[in-house]
Amino acid sequence: MNIAVAQSGGPTCAINASLVGVVKECFKNTDIDAVFGSINGIEGIINDNLVDLKTVIKTNDDMEHLCLTPSTVLGSCRFKLPDEDKDISLYKKINDCFIKHRIGIFIYIGGNDSMDTVLKLSAYLKRTDSKVKVIGVPKTIDNDLPCTDHTPGFGSAAKYVAATVQEIIRDSRVYSVQSVTIIEIMGRHAGWLAASTCVLRSNGETAPHLIYVPEAKFTTRKFLEDIRIAQAKYKAVIVVVSEGVETENDGYMTGVEDSFGHKYLSGIGKHLENLVRDEIGCKVRSIELNVMQRCSSHLASKTDIDEAQLIGSEGVKAALRGESGKVLVFNRVSDMPYTVTIGSVDADMVANKEKLLPEKWINAEQNNIKDSALNYFLPLIQGEVNVKMRNGIPVHFQGMN
Amino acid sequence: MNIAVAQSGGPTCAINASLVGVVKECFKNTDIDAVFGSINGIEGIINDNLVDLKTVIKTNDDMEHLCLTPSTVLGSCRFKLPDEDKDISLYKKINDCFIKHRIGIFIYIGGNDSMDTVLKLSAYLKRTDSKVKVIGVPKTIDNDLPCTDHTPGFGSAAKYVAATVQEIIRDSRVYSVQSVTIIEIMGRHAGWLAASTCVLRSNGETAPHLIYVPEAKFTTRKFLEDIRIAQAKYKAVIVVVSEGVETENDGYMTGVEDSFGHKYLSGIGKHLENLVRDEIGCKVRSIELNVMQRCSSHLASKTDIDEAQLIGSEGVKAALRGESGKVLVFNRVSDMPYTVTIGSVDADMVANKEKLLPEKWINAEQNNIKDSALNYFLPLIQGEVNVKMRNGIPVHFQGMN
Repeated sequence: MNIAVAQSGGPTCAINASLVGVVKECFKNTDIDAVFGSINGIEGIINDNLVDLKTVIKTNDDMEHLCLTPSTVLGSCRFKLPDEDKDISLYKKINDCFIKHRIGIFIYIGGNDSMDTVLKLSAYLKRTDSKVKVIGVPKTIDNDLPCTDHTPGFGSAAKYVAATVQEIIRDSRVYSVQSVTIIEIMGRHAGWLAASTCVLRSNGETAPHLIYVPEAKFTTRKFLEDIRIAQAKYKAVIVVVSEGVETENDGYMTGVEDSFGHKYLSGIGKHLENLVRDEIGCKVRSIELNVMQRCSSHLASKTDIDEAQLIGSEGVKAALRGESGKVLVFNRVSDMPYTVTIGSVDADMVANKEKLLPEKWINAEQNNIKDSALNYFLPLIQGEVNVKMRNGIPVHFQGMN
Repeated sequence: MNIAVAQSGGPTCAINASLVGVVKECFKNTDIDAVFGSINGIEGIINDNLVDLKTVIKTNDDMEHLCLTPSTVLGSCRFKLPDEDKDISLYKKINDCFIKHRIGIFIYIGGNDSMDTVLKLSAYLKRTDSKVKVIGVPKTIDNDLPCTDHTPGFGSAAKYVAATVQEIIRDSRVYSVQSVTIIEIMGRHAGWLAASTCVLRSNGETAPHLIYVPEAKFTTRKFLEDIRIAQAKYKAVIVVVSEGVETENDGYMTGVEDSFGHKYLSGIGKHLENLVRDEIGCKVRSIELNVMQRCSSHLASKTDIDEAQLIGSEGVKAALRGESGKVLVFNRVSDMPYTVTIGSVDADMVANKEKLLPEKWINAEQNNIKDSALNYFLPLIQGEVNVKMRNGIPVHFQGMN
């Protein structure tokens, strides 16, 4: 029997570690002959675009480098399988590929969209009496999957964001004038990553002084009031805001246009920067952490990378036990000492669903995160990875280039 | 005798290491009683705002943490001394402060504006028969000071930029569609930092495929041609551009305005992004590395941090030898093995002057950096610092908070 594995959705620092977990488990299992990597997610299965991973991941060094190479080495896709009654031909193509390559297990590493594929495909295969098992392995820096304590990729993103926000705090305290620094963090619907910057408190930082997440109420008037109150205490006010925070129509629309008439969207950070400049008039800047927050493997969380590898290998074990249509999840047993177990849930519990930041962790003023969230976030960013350097630069796995 | 030290100009990862170098040299010298830190550059001397550094930098751990804390722990300023004939009162205030605190040596760590202060102040002191010695210690991520092989702060910025661009390269290769990623790097007049991304070649990267610096000719027409040629070879084209690159008036002005009529400047990266979107029509994004490139101490170059400390302590030694009105510089003896010596030059050789990237390193097409530059850049990013972590986050020196 052979196995196929694919990666899907947005890049993270941990998704290649989960791939390594899958590959390692397969290489040591004598029942499994070949492990095929599907190029660009499920599209690789549909188009019969597979790579025998033994030909590219050859050594232990390859595996180590791959664990600390960000993004998806097999490529990715944003493709969602249509419902069977809309277009069954794709399901047949997938099944043909499975039969042709004697694939008995398909592991799909991805976010909630990918878990929709796990759900639909496993249902089709069961209904058509196929023996192929389909297992979902979660990943997303957004940490917004239900039924799991957290998602692989989130801890590394949170560690990078915390370290970087701390460095920006230092940078902001240089001059003697009053200033506001607004840092925009990824998270379109859920504020997990922005909220996680509260971990800096554990190192004695008072900043970020204000944290805005999409789950809290937000108005322009209250935001300006918050800034003025913070300025009474701090010369350099640090604000963290999730990209998904929406303002009421306050005249400071986020759509901007250059003088040639080209419209584009500026983010909430730039929007709030303009607001502070016009309404308060102090020195103000906004900073986007952009894709760096999802791909900074050089500062990955060891906890995250180790767990990502483990949940990948557990995905293979679950399929070998006969499970299908399941998504692997972390269950937290305790915060201190930090202990998790790995279990599985039906894919329909996860597919297309989002888990928002709990209300209990948002303060009454709706502008910060309570200390009670620290015990949740801190264990996820612990430990440093041993990054191999060559010529002063981290070594990435380049076997698929 | 006492010593005063101040930090000036934009933050870097290495300017606190130079301060540590000054402090260490003073602490071990029995001729020196106290070391005063001047708050916010020369302004601290003018306003008699000094801190006895023995009261804040108390332990070896403090010094170690300070070396890896970005930005200026003593604050900074953008203040330039007026000419003596315009306003001599400030010079008298400075001299009063020196006399009051028995200061015999003043060390100014900063960029080319700060070296103007070294020049003017040392000339005034000599003319008025003061015995106070004034020495400049260079720093800037821009690497644009004349008479020195390179500047402290540049190597760490270059290491961060190289590692981050490499991670963005991985991030850009995820999807199957053609794309252009434009990364905007600091450097208003000189392209040193953007140029330094050529070091990725030493690790086998073909990207960045195009590097634009202010020293090269740039036209919109040629840029679009360059992109099209690169797209014929690469699915994900990576472009690095210095913020200082200027376009002719091509209708894609960099001034943008939001729909409420608030004008602000977008950078060259966003400008080129709009250009590619409209003229080529493929997936395109621009990324600013923003202040992270000057404050990411967690990925500092050991070579840079060690040298910054050394040149700080050499500054004290030069003053003790009786030098004044001088700026410390690095002279490169050889690339391999990398060897530098530290010397000094008259401040008027450095003050208000800029050193641009040499023409010999820019390719004929004006869109990339030649391999011959690698031997210059590579030694500066070598070595990793031993970052102390607490709760999963780098430990910063917080004694001045």
